Amino acid sequence: MAYDPGGGGAQAPGGEFQSPALEQLVRRLQQLPGLGRKSATRIALHFLNDREGAGDLTEAVAHALANVTQCTRCGAITEADPCAICTSATREATVLCVVASPVDILPFEKAAFFRGRYFVLGGLLSPLDGVRAADLPFERLMSRIDEDGVSEVILALDTSVEGETTALYLQRILGERDLQLSRLATGIPVGGALAYTDEATLQQAFQHRTGF
Amino acid sequence: MAYDPGGGGAQAPGGEFQSPALEQLVRRLQQLPGLGRKSATRIALHFLNDREGAGDLTEAVAHALANVTQCTRCGAITEADPCAICTSATREATVLCVVASPVDILPFEKAAFFRGRYFVLGGLLSPLDGVRAADLPFERLMSRIDEDGVSEVILALDTSVEGETTALYLQRILGERDLQLSRLATGIPVGGALAYTDEATLQQAFQHRTGF
Repeated sequence: MAYDPGGGGAQAPGGEFQSPALEQLVRRLQQLPGLGRKSATRIALHFLNDREGAGDLTEAVAHALANVTQCTRCGAITEADPCAICTSATREATVLCVVASPVDILPFEKAAFFRGRYFVLGGLLSPLDGVRAADLPFERLMSRIDEDGVSEVILALDTSVEGETTALYLQRILGERDLQLSRLATGIPVGGALAYTDEATLQQAFQHRTGF
Repeated sequence: MAYDPGGGGAQAPGGEFQSPALEQLVRRLQQLPGLGRKSATRIALHFLNDREGAGDLTEAVAHALANVTQCTRCGAITEADPCAICTSATREATVLCVVASPVDILPFEKAAFFRGRYFVLGGLLSPLDGVRAADLPFERLMSRIDEDGVSEVILALDTSVEGETTALYLQRILGERDLQLSRLATGIPVGGALAYTDEATLQQAFQHRTGF
Protein backbone atom coordinates (compact mmCIF):
# COMPACT_ATOMS: atom_id res chain seq x y z
CA MET A 1 0.00 0.00 0.00
CA ALA A 2 3.04 2.22 -0.50
CA TYR A 3 1.65 4.01 -3.52
CA ASP A 4 0.58 7.58 -2.91
CA PRO A 5 -1.76 8.70 -5.69
CA GLY A 6 -0.26 12.15 -5.25
CA GLY A 7 -1.70 15.63 -5.28
CA GLY A 8 -1.77 16.13 -9.01
CA GLY A 9 -5.46 16.14 -9.77
CA ALA A 10 -7.76 18.80 -8.44
CA GLN A 11 -10.59 16.41 -7.69
CA ALA A 12 -11.16 14.18 -4.73
CA PRO A 13 -11.47 10.49 -5.49
CA GLY A 14 -15.02 10.07 -6.73
CA GLY A 15 -16.65 7.57 -4.42
CA GLU A 16 -16.53 5.80 -1.11
CA PHE A 17 -14.21 3.12 0.17
CA GLN A 18 -15.61 -0.32 0.83
CA SER A 19 -14.33 -0.02 4.41
CA PRO A 20 -16.64 1.87 6.81
CA ALA A 21 -13.72 2.36 9.23
CA LEU A 22 -11.71 4.13 6.52
CA GLU A 23 -14.72 6.21 5.46
CA GLN A 24 -15.22 7.23 9.08
CA LEU A 25 -11.57 8.23 9.39
CA VAL A 26 -11.73 10.28 6.18
CA ARG A 27 -14.87 12.06 7.43
CA ARG A 28 -13.26 12.88 10.78
CA LEU A 29 -10.17 14.22 9.03
CA GLN A 30 -12.37 16.33 6.75
CA GLN A 31 -13.68 18.14 9.82
CA LEU A 32 -10.23 19.56 10.52
CA PRO A 33 -9.65 23.13 9.40
CA GLY A 34 -8.29 23.39 5.87
CA LEU A 35 -8.80 19.75 4.87
CA GLY A 36 -11.12 18.73 2.06
CA ARG A 37 -12.12 15.24 0.96
CA LYS A 38 -9.00 14.86 -1.15
CA SER A 39 -6.45 15.87 1.51
CA ALA A 40 -8.33 13.82 4.11
CA THR A 41 -8.18 10.75 1.84
CA ARG A 42 -4.46 11.22 1.26
CA ILE A 43 -3.79 11.49 4.98
CA ALA A 44 -5.99 8.48 5.83
CA LEU A 45 -4.16 6.32 3.26
CA HIS A 46 -0.87 7.67 4.60
CA PHE A 47 -1.86 6.41 8.06
CA LEU A 48 -2.49 2.93 6.63
CA ASN A 49 0.94 3.00 4.95
CA ASP A 50 2.76 4.32 7.99
CA ARG A 51 1.12 2.70 11.00
CA GLU A 52 4.01 3.59 13.27
CA GLY A 53 3.83 7.23 12.25
CA ALA A 54 0.06 7.20 12.83
CA GLY A 55 0.63 5.83 16.33
CA ASP A 56 3.25 8.50 17.03
CA LEU A 57 0.82 11.17 15.90
CA THR A 58 -2.10 9.98 18.04
CA GLU A 59 0.33 9.79 20.99
CA ALA A 60 1.47 13.35 20.26
CA VAL A 61 -2.17 14.49 20.23
CA ALA A 62 -2.86 12.80 23.58
CA HIS A 63 0.38 14.16 25.06
CA ALA A 64 -0.44 17.69 23.92
CA LEU A 65 -4.01 17.49 25.22
CA ALA A 66 -2.73 16.24 28.57
CA ASN A 67 0.08 18.77 28.97
CA VAL A 68 -0.84 21.91 27.10
CA THR A 69 -2.89 24.54 28.85
CA GLN A 70 -3.35 28.28 28.70
CA CYS A 71 -1.60 30.64 31.05
CA THR A 72 -4.27 31.90 33.44
CA ARG A 73 -2.49 35.26 33.55
CA CYS A 74 -1.95 36.04 29.87
CA GLY A 75 -3.71 33.33 27.86
CA ALA A 76 -0.53 32.11 26.11
CA ILE A 77 -0.25 28.42 25.31
CA THR A 78 2.00 26.89 27.88
CA GLU A 79 2.75 23.77 29.92
CA ALA A 80 3.59 25.66 33.12
CA ASP A 81 0.96 28.01 34.51
CA PRO A 82 1.71 30.92 34.80
CA CYS A 83 3.84 30.81 31.64
CA ALA A 84 7.56 31.50 31.34
CA ILE A 85 6.94 35.00 29.99
CA CYS A 86 4.59 36.01 32.82
CA THR A 87 7.06 34.74 35.44
CA SER A 88 10.28 35.94 33.77
CA ALA A 89 12.11 38.50 35.92
CA THR A 90 13.67 40.03 32.83
CA ARG A 91 10.33 40.86 31.14
CA GLU A 92 8.83 44.22 32.08
CA ALA A 93 5.52 43.71 33.84
CA THR A 94 4.46 47.28 33.15
CA VAL A 95 4.45 46.98 29.35
CA LEU A 96 1.60 44.90 27.99
CA CYS A 97 1.02 43.81 24.40
CA VAL A 98 -2.61 42.86 23.70
CA VAL A 99 -3.12 40.20 21.00
CA ALA A 100 -6.13 38.27 19.73
CA SER A 101 -4.77 34.72 19.64
CA PRO A 102 -1.96 32.77 21.35
CA VAL A 103 -0.46 32.33 17.86
CA ASP A 104 0.07 36.09 17.61
CA ILE A 105 2.72 35.88 20.33
CA LEU A 106 4.97 33.73 18.14
CA PRO A 107 6.28 36.36 15.67
CA PHE A 108 7.03 38.74 18.57
CA GLU A 109 9.03 36.09 20.41
CA LYS A 110 10.83 35.09 17.23
CA ALA A 111 11.80 38.70 16.52
CA ALA A 112 12.82 38.95 20.19
CA PHE A 113 12.80 42.76 20.42
CA PHE A 114 9.79 43.10 22.72
CA ARG A 115 10.70 42.98 26.40
CA GLY A 116 7.23 43.38 27.92
CA ARG A 117 4.51 40.80 28.51
CA TYR A 118 1.33 39.73 26.68
CA PHE A 119 -2.39 39.54 27.14
CA VAL A 120 -4.37 37.24 24.84
CA LEU A 121 -8.00 38.25 24.20
CA GLY A 122 -8.84 34.88 22.68
CA GLY A 123 -10.97 36.57 20.04
CA LEU A 124 -12.01 39.85 18.48
CA LEU A 125 -15.27 41.74 18.77
CA SER A 126 -17.53 40.74 15.93
CA PRO A 127 -21.18 41.78 15.95
CA LEU A 128 -21.75 39.64 12.85
CA ASP A 129 -20.43 36.49 14.51
CA GLY A 130 -22.11 37.38 17.80
CA VAL A 131 -18.85 38.04 19.70
CA ARG A 132 -19.66 40.87 22.14
CA ALA A 133 -17.67 42.65 24.82
CA ALA A 134 -19.04 40.32 27.49
CA ASP A 135 -17.54 37.36 25.59
CA LEU A 136 -13.99 38.66 25.80
CA PRO A 137 -11.82 38.93 28.97
CA PHE A 138 -11.73 42.73 29.17
CA GLU A 139 -12.33 42.67 32.93
CA ARG A 140 -9.39 40.35 33.42
CA LEU A 141 -7.30 42.72 31.28
CA MET A 142 -8.29 45.63 33.55
CA SER A 143 -7.38 43.66 36.69
CA ARG A 144 -4.05 42.74 35.20
CA ILE A 145 -3.32 46.36 34.34
CA ASP A 146 -4.14 47.39 37.90
CA GLU A 147 -2.28 44.55 39.62
CA ASP A 148 0.92 44.96 37.60
CA GLY A 149 0.78 48.76 37.48
CA VAL A 150 0.91 48.59 33.68
CA SER A 151 1.97 51.94 32.23
CA GLU A 152 2.01 51.07 28.52
CA VAL A 153 -0.39 49.02 26.42
CA ILE A 154 0.35 48.16 22.79
CA LEU A 155 -2.52 46.81 20.70
CA ALA A 156 -1.28 44.22 18.19
CA LEU A 157 -4.52 43.21 16.49
CA ASP A 158 -5.37 42.15 12.95
CA THR A 159 -6.15 45.07 10.63
CA SER A 160 -9.54 43.55 9.87
CA VAL A 161 -12.95 45.04 10.65
CA GLU A 162 -13.02 42.93 13.83
CA GLY A 163 -9.53 44.08 14.79
CA GLU A 164 -10.48 47.73 14.26
CA THR A 165 -13.70 47.33 16.25
CA THR A 166 -11.79 45.74 19.12
CA ALA A 167 -9.07 48.40 19.01
CA LEU A 168 -11.70 51.16 19.17
CA TYR A 169 -13.41 49.46 22.11
CA LEU A 170 -10.11 49.09 23.96
CA GLN A 171 -9.27 52.72 23.23
CA ARG A 172 -12.57 53.66 24.87
CA ILE A 173 -12.23 51.55 28.01
CA LEU A 174 -8.51 52.23 28.47
CA GLY A 175 -8.56 55.86 27.36
CA GLU A 176 -9.36 57.27 30.77
CA ARG A 177 -6.56 55.44 32.53
CA ASP A 178 -3.15 56.92 33.11
CA LEU A 179 -1.25 54.82 30.59
CA GLN A 180 0.35 55.08 27.17
CA LEU A 181 -1.88 53.40 24.60
CA SER A 182 -0.62 52.64 21.10
CA ARG A 183 -1.19 50.26 18.25
CA LEU A 184 1.02 48.74 15.60
CA ALA A 185 1.65 50.94 12.56
CA THR A 186 -0.23 50.18 9.36
CA GLY A 187 1.75 50.61 6.17
CA ILE A 188 3.75 49.03 3.37
CA PRO A 189 5.44 45.83 4.60
CA VAL A 190 9.24 45.76 4.51
CA GLY A 191 10.19 44.37 1.12
CA GLY A 192 6.62 44.95 -0.08
CA ALA A 193 6.14 46.06 -3.66
CA LEU A 194 4.46 49.45 -3.88
CA ALA A 195 2.78 48.57 -7.18
CA TYR A 196 0.97 45.64 -5.59
CA THR A 197 -0.08 47.41 -2.41
CA ASP A 198 -3.83 47.49 -1.89
CA GLU A 199 -5.57 50.86 -1.73
CA ALA A 200 -6.44 50.70 1.97
CA THR A 201 -2.86 49.94 2.99
CA LEU A 202 -1.50 52.65 0.70
CA GLN A 203 -3.91 55.19 2.12
CA GLN A 204 -2.91 54.26 5.67
CA ALA A 205 0.80 54.40 4.80
CA PHE A 206 0.32 57.81 3.22
CA GLN A 207 -1.74 59.16 6.09
CA HIS A 208 0.83 58.03 8.68
CA ARG A 209 3.90 58.96 6.62
CA THR A 210 6.89 59.71 8.81
CA GLY A 211 9.31 62.63 8.57
CA PHE A 212 13.06 62.17 8.14
CA MET B 1 -8.92 29.31 23.14
CA ALA B 2 -11.83 29.43 20.75
CA TYR B 3 -10.24 31.94 18.39
CA ASP B 4 -9.07 30.51 15.10
CA PRO B 5 -6.54 32.86 13.52
CA GLY B 6 -7.90 31.76 10.16
CA GLY B 7 -6.30 30.98 6.86
CA GLY B 8 -5.98 34.50 5.56
CA GLY B 9 -2.24 35.09 5.61
CA ALA B 10 0.09 33.07 3.44
CA GLN B 11 2.78 32.75 6.09
CA ALA B 12 3.09 30.30 8.94
CA PRO B 13 3.22 31.84 12.41
CA GLY B 14 6.80 33.00 12.80
CA GLY B 15 8.18 31.18 15.79
CA GLU B 16 7.79 28.35 18.22
CA PHE B 17 5.25 27.79 20.95
CA GLN B 18 6.46 27.81 24.53
CA SER B 19 4.99 24.31 24.91
CA PRO B 20 7.26 21.46 23.73
CA ALA B 21 4.22 19.13 23.60
CA LEU B 22 2.47 21.48 21.17
CA GLU B 23 5.62 21.94 19.09
CA GLN B 24 5.98 18.17 18.91
CA LEU B 25 2.36 17.81 17.77
CA VAL B 26 2.79 20.49 15.10
CA ARG B 27 5.95 18.75 13.81
CA ARG B 28 4.18 15.39 13.63
CA LEU B 29 1.26 16.94 11.77
CA GLN B 30 3.68 18.60 9.35
CA GLN B 31 4.90 15.16 8.32
CA LEU B 32 1.49 14.33 6.88
CA PRO B 33 1.14 14.69 3.12
CA GLY B 34 0.03 18.14 2.04
CA LEU B 35 0.39 19.86 5.41
CA GLY B 36 2.83 22.72 5.95
CA ARG B 37 3.71 24.51 9.17
CA LYS B 38 0.70 26.79 8.91
CA SER B 39 -1.93 24.11 8.34
CA ALA B 40 -0.31 21.91 11.00
CA THR B 41 -0.47 24.79 13.50
CA ARG B 42 -4.15 25.43 12.72
CA ILE B 43 -5.00 21.77 13.20
CA ALA B 44 -3.00 21.49 16.43
CA LEU B 45 -4.78 24.55 17.89
CA HIS B 46 -8.08 23.11 16.67
CA PHE B 47 -7.36 19.95 18.69
CA LEU B 48 -6.81 22.06 21.82
CA ASN B 49 -10.11 23.85 21.20
CA ASP B 50 -12.04 20.69 20.43
CA ARG B 51 -10.66 18.03 22.75
CA GLU B 52 -13.63 15.75 22.22
CA GLY B 53 -13.21 15.95 18.44
CA ALA B 54 -9.49 15.22 18.82
CA GLY B 55 -10.32 12.13 20.87
CA ASP B 56 -12.86 11.00 18.27
CA LEU B 57 -10.25 11.40 15.56
CA THR B 58 -7.52 9.42 17.34
CA GLU B 59 -10.10 6.71 17.98
CA ALA B 60 -11.05 6.71 14.31
CA VAL B 61 -7.36 6.32 13.41
CA ALA B 62 -6.95 3.38 15.80
CA HIS B 63 -10.20 1.81 14.60
CA ALA B 64 -9.16 2.12 10.96
CA LEU B 65 -5.68 0.71 11.63
CA ALA B 66 -7.22 -2.21 13.49
CA ASN B 67 -9.94 -3.00 10.95
CA VAL B 68 -8.77 -1.91 7.53
CA THR B 69 -6.71 -4.26 5.46
CA GLN B 70 -6.09 -4.94 1.80
CA CYS B 71 -7.86 -7.66 -0.10
CA THR B 72 -5.29 -10.41 -0.68
CA ARG B 73 -6.95 -11.16 -4.03
CA CYS B 74 -7.21 -7.70 -5.60
CA GLY B 75 -5.46 -5.23 -3.29
CA ALA B 76 -8.58 -3.11 -2.64
CA ILE B 77 -8.98 -1.51 0.76
CA THR B 78 -11.43 -3.60 2.68
CA GLU B 79 -12.42 -4.88 6.09
CA ALA B 80 -13.38 -8.36 4.90
CA ASP B 81 -10.74 -10.37 3.05
CA PRO B 82 -11.40 -11.22 0.23
CA CYS B 83 -13.33 -8.03 -0.45
CA ALA B 84 -16.98 -7.70 -1.39
CA ILE B 85 -16.15 -7.17 -5.06
CA CYS B 86 -13.92 -10.25 -5.31
CA THR B 87 -16.59 -12.41 -3.66
CA SER B 88 -19.65 -10.89 -5.37
CA ALA B 89 -21.49 -13.43 -7.51
CA THR B 90 -22.78 -10.66 -9.76
CA ARG B 91 -19.34 -9.35 -10.76
CA GLU B 92 -17.74 -11.08 -13.74
CA ALA B 93 -14.57 -12.86 -12.69
CA THR B 94 -13.32 -13.00 -16.24
CA VAL B 95 -13.10 -9.22 -16.75
CA LEU B 96 -10.28 -7.58 -14.83
CA CYS B 97 -9.54 -3.87 -14.50
CA VAL B 98 -5.92 -3.16 -13.53
CA VAL B 99 -5.35 0.01 -11.48
CA ALA B 100 -2.35 1.52 -9.69
CA SER B 101 -3.86 2.43 -6.33
CA PRO B 102 -6.85 1.32 -4.22
CA VAL B 103 -8.16 4.88 -4.61
CA ASP B 104 -8.50 4.37 -8.36
CA ILE B 105 -11.32 1.87 -7.72
CA LEU B 106 -13.52 4.59 -6.21
CA PRO B 107 -14.56 6.49 -9.37
CA PHE B 108 -15.38 3.20 -11.12
CA GLU B 109 -17.58 2.06 -8.26
CA LYS B 110 -19.23 5.46 -8.06
CA ALA B 111 -20.02 5.43 -11.77
CA ALA B 112 -21.23 1.85 -11.32
CA PHE B 113 -21.06 0.80 -14.99
CA PHE B 114 -18.20 -1.67 -14.65
CA ARG B 115 -19.33 -5.20 -13.80
CA GLY B 116 -15.93 -6.91 -13.67
CA ARG B 117 -13.37 -7.07 -10.89
CA TYR B 118 -10.15 -5.22 -10.08
CA PHE B 119 -6.47 -5.81 -9.59
CA VAL B 120 -4.45 -3.18 -7.72
CA LEU B 121 -0.76 -2.95 -8.64
CA GLY B 122 0.02 -0.79 -5.60
CA GLY B 123 2.35 1.36 -7.69
CA LEU B 124 3.64 2.10 -11.16
CA LEU B 125 6.95 1.24 -12.79
CA SER B 126 9.33 4.13 -12.28
CA PRO B 127 13.02 3.70 -13.12
CA LEU B 128 13.69 7.15 -11.63
CA ASP B 129 12.14 6.25 -8.28
CA GLY B 130 13.65 2.78 -8.38
CA VAL B 131 10.32 0.94 -8.80
CA ARG B 132 11.09 -2.05 -11.00
CA ALA B 133 9.02 -4.96 -12.28
CA ALA B 134 10.13 -7.14 -9.37
CA ASP B 135 8.63 -4.58 -6.95
CA LEU B 136 5.11 -4.87 -8.37
CA PRO B 137 2.81 -7.94 -8.09
CA PHE B 138 2.86 -8.92 -11.76
CA GLU B 139 3.25 -12.60 -10.88
CA ARG B 140 0.19 -12.44 -8.67
CA LEU B 141 -1.68 -10.77 -11.55
CA MET B 142 -0.70 -13.64 -13.86
CA SER B 143 -1.87 -16.25 -11.34
CA ARG B 144 -5.15 -14.44 -10.92
CA ILE B 145 -5.67 -14.33 -14.68
CA ASP B 146 -5.01 -18.06 -14.88
CA GLU B 147 -7.10 -19.04 -11.86
CA ASP B 148 -10.14 -17.00 -12.85
CA GLY B 149 -9.83 -17.70 -16.56
CA VAL B 150 -9.77 -13.96 -17.23
CA SER B 151 -10.60 -13.20 -20.85
CA GLU B 152 -10.46 -9.41 -20.80
CA VAL B 153 -8.01 -7.04 -19.10
CA ILE B 154 -8.57 -3.27 -19.06
CA LEU B 155 -5.65 -1.07 -18.03
CA ALA B 156 -6.86 1.98 -16.10
CA LEU B 157 -3.56 3.70 -15.30
CA ASP B 158 -2.57 7.34 -14.96
CA THR B 159 -1.52 8.92 -18.26
CA SER B 160 1.84 9.83 -16.74
CA VAL B 161 5.26 8.60 -17.84
CA GLU B 162 5.06 5.94 -15.11
CA GLY B 163 1.57 4.94 -16.24
CA GLU B 164 2.70 4.62 -19.85
CA THR B 165 5.77 2.61 -18.86
CA THR B 166 3.64 0.24 -16.81
CA ALA B 167 1.04 -0.09 -19.59
CA LEU B 168 3.77 -0.97 -22.12
CA TYR B 169 5.22 -3.55 -19.75
CA LEU B 170 1.81 -5.12 -19.16
CA GLN B 171 1.18 -5.15 -22.90
CA ARG B 172 4.43 -7.12 -23.30
CA ILE B 173 3.79 -9.71 -20.61
CA LEU B 174 0.08 -10.11 -21.37
CA GLY B 175 0.37 -9.79 -25.15
CA GLU B 176 1.02 -13.47 -25.76
CA ARG B 177 -1.95 -14.66 -23.76
CA ASP B 178 -5.31 -15.36 -25.25
CA LEU B 179 -7.17 -12.37 -23.84
CA GLN B 180 -8.56 -9.03 -24.89
CA LEU B 181 -6.26 -6.26 -23.67
CA SER B 182 -7.33 -2.62 -23.75
CA ARG B 183 -6.67 0.65 -21.99
CA LEU B 184 -8.81 3.66 -21.18
CA ALA B 185 -9.15 6.18 -23.99
CA THR B 186 -7.11 9.38 -23.83
CA GLY B 187 -8.90 12.49 -25.03
CA ILE B 188 -10.76 15.67 -24.21
CA PRO B 189 -12.66 15.22 -20.93
CA VAL B 190 -16.44 15.52 -21.07
CA GLY B 191 -17.24 19.18 -20.51
CA GLY B 192 -13.59 20.07 -21.12
CA ALA B 193 -12.88 23.29 -22.99
CA LEU B 194 -11.03 22.71 -26.26
CA ALA B 195 -9.20 26.02 -26.00
CA TYR B 196 -7.61 25.01 -22.72
CA THR B 197 -6.68 21.47 -23.68
CA ASP B 198 -2.96 20.76 -23.45
CA GLU B 199 -1.09 19.78 -26.61
CA ALA B 200 -0.44 16.19 -25.61
CA THR B 201 -4.12 15.52 -24.84
CA LEU B 202 -5.21 17.25 -28.05
CA GLN B 203 -2.79 15.20 -30.11
CA GLN B 204 -4.04 11.96 -28.48
CA ALA B 205 -7.67 12.98 -28.99
CA PHE B 206 -6.98 13.77 -32.64
CA GLN B 207 -5.06 10.57 -33.23
CA HIS B 208 -7.80 8.43 -31.68
CA ARG B 209 -10.69 10.37 -33.20
CA THR B 210 -13.79 8.24 -33.62
CA GLY B 211 -16.08 7.95 -36.64
CA PHE B 212 -19.82 8.65 -36.52
